[in-house]
Amino acid sequence: MTRAATLAEIAQEAGVSAPTVSKVLNGRADVAPATRERVEELLQRHGYRRRRGNRQTSPLLELVFHELESAWAVEVIRGVENAVREEGLSIVLSESAGHGPGQSWVDGVLARRPTGVVLVLSDLDRSLREQLTRRDIPFVVMDPAGDPGQEVPAVGTTNWDGGLAATRHLLDLGHRRIGLIGGPARMMCSRARADGYRAALDMAGIAYDPELVREGDFHHESGRLLGLELLGLPDRPTAVFAGNDLQALGLYEAARELGLRIPEDLSVVGFDDLPLARWVGPPLTTVRQPLTEMAETATHLVIDLARGVRPGTLRVDLATSLVERSSTAPPRTVDPGPVADS
Amino acid sequence: MTRAATLAEIAQEAGVSAPTVSKVLNGRADVAPATRERVEELLQRHGYRRRRGNRQTSPLLELVFHELESAWAVEVIRGVENAVREEGLSIVLSESAGHGPGQSWVDGVLARRPTGVVLVLSDLDRSLREQLTRRDIPFVVMDPAGDPGQEVPAVGTTNWDGGLAATRHLLDLGHRRIGLIGGPARMMCSRARADGYRAALDMAGIAYDPELVREGDFHHESGRLLGLELLGLPDRPTAVFAGNDLQALGLYEAARELGLRIPEDLSVVGFDDLPLARWVGPPLTTVRQPLTEMAETATHLVIDLARGVRPGTLRVDLATSLVERSSTAPPRTVDPGPVADS
Repeated sequence: MTRAATLAEIAQEAGVSAPTVSKVLNGRADVAPATRERVEELLQRHGYRRRRGNRQTSPLLELVFHELESAWAVEVIRGVENAVREEGLSIVLSESAGHGPGQSWVDGVLARRPTGVVLVLSDLDRSLREQLTRRDIPFVVMDPAGDPGQEVPAVGTTNWDGGLAATRHLLDLGHRRIGLIGGPARMMCSRARADGYRAALDMAGIAYDPELVREGDFHHESGRLLGLELLGLPDRPTAVFAGNDLQALGLYEAARELGLRIPEDLSVVGFDDLPLARWVGPPLTTVRQPLTEMAETATHLVIDLARGVRPGTLRVDLATSLVERSSTAPPRTVDPGPVADS
Repeated sequence: MTRAATLAEIAQEAGVSAPTVSKVLNGRADVAPATRERVEELLQRHGYRRRRGNRQTSPLLELVFHELESAWAVEVIRGVENAVREEGLSIVLSESAGHGPGQSWVDGVLARRPTGVVLVLSDLDRSLREQLTRRDIPFVVMDPAGDPGQEVPAVGTTNWDGGLAATRHLLDLGHRRIGLIGGPARMMCSRARADGYRAALDMAGIAYDPELVREGDFHHESGRLLGLELLGLPDRPTAVFAGNDLQALGLYEAARELGLRIPEDLSVVGFDDLPLARWVGPPLTTVRQPLTEMAETATHLVIDLARGVRPGTLRVDLATSLVERSSTAPPRTVDPGPVADS
């Protein structure tokens, strides 16, 4: 079968009525699990896609977090709220993790016939994405962390540029031994930030020193532990790009434990610009990721897709910017040799 | 008219059909604004209440924040998410501030026929509450801050006990000059915490000294400015109960500006136990407010009300608890006289 199968053909092949296939497409609960599974399998095999405009929608926009643990979830919610308010839509909020196999949760999403879906950090929800595509429910990935693939509409941020700007700021202050506590290598944003760091060093004619680079998990504790490692080196760095704000705060704690003052003995740059970056002591110099604007952009994009507007590009990265506060200063000695611990 | 008016009687008095009154009750958009206004006015005048069980509901629970700015919104959302997941409901999230007159937003809530509504910090939404009551849509106020009134189902926390525990902790460490940076006096939670502080001093036989007490607005900057005032007193306090965590961090900054070390020169206790309390330097001793559990409780309560279960009490306060970290220590001198600045 080379042309796309119709709903009636799929019904025939599954041995059910066309309305039953329709129920499966609409996420209705009154279909036996075995029947639904057979129909879903056939829909997938035949690459069935509902024709655009051929569905009823409710004035709801689904916002799906992989996990609500994130310190920046509120920034994202606020951006989506700003965007839907202009459009007269309401947000249905859910968390995709911790739902077991998740079919009943997916059915809930489908049954609400949302105008569209914004997925946050959703690299684990491939099955959801396939089911949305099959039903012609548009979705956009709000993606500060991963790489959802070319064909997926996504809004991200300029992680490489941010890593470059953070490191250049430290170079401009006169630092030459600059450490990096990066995020997990499996996350594209970590790789991009680390590559920006490396590029800035290279452009300044400074050799990349793997001894000054550690891989964390973006949590406070890894900033502390890896910070203790870096600061315990015989020739310790005078500045560290901490990969994100939470690792920067862990590094603050490591410095306190060792009696090192920030910024006098150690300069620190974070990434994200969470609200707490302003409140810590000293206030943290960091790379701002425009989470609220990213969420607004993702929401407008999904609404455009729902209206049949094809965007010029499926991938948008919003710009990062350096926010200078009080955690960075010139090194006490600009000489690249060993720095005495205080 | 002493007995409750029926829908038909209200229709007759308004000069419209009964289905039109029904449309108004259901928040349908296809009613002329003037008609809706007249019907709403009559519904209110006659104290019309839809009979329980006499409405269709959707598997949606409305979660309404007054503002999404709050640093603890994620904690609340997570609690509601935990509770609705068990019940097979989904969350519709909205923000009630910034909607202008707000009737179209209220209509949206009503039109969705939610199972129930959880309102967070909603003392400004009296009109919404009245309209919900009229339609028999149950609601609960998640209320860490205000006093919604006897008749309103609400979940709060033991603010007085928390203020008492914070102050007793400082007294137990040997502090005698203990300052307070309270929250706004218009918020019940601020008053309760301040009264707990006062009671602890009284029970320890220490006179209340108004010079050591300031009223802030719960933001970082007021903690800093009022902290500078308290720490600039000739006989400055050796410890301060900072009213909430953000004010505690502002006080941290004031101490840094004056070269005072925490906890060596100054002990600080916060209130809330936001995630950042663990991450600041030094980690903050604070009174934990169980926001996630409060949100879970509020959600279960509203679902019970939707099922016609009457709770034993409409007001539940969950317990606070003191979390000791590193921002508190015995004073350097236990003598109540002047303490030299370091």
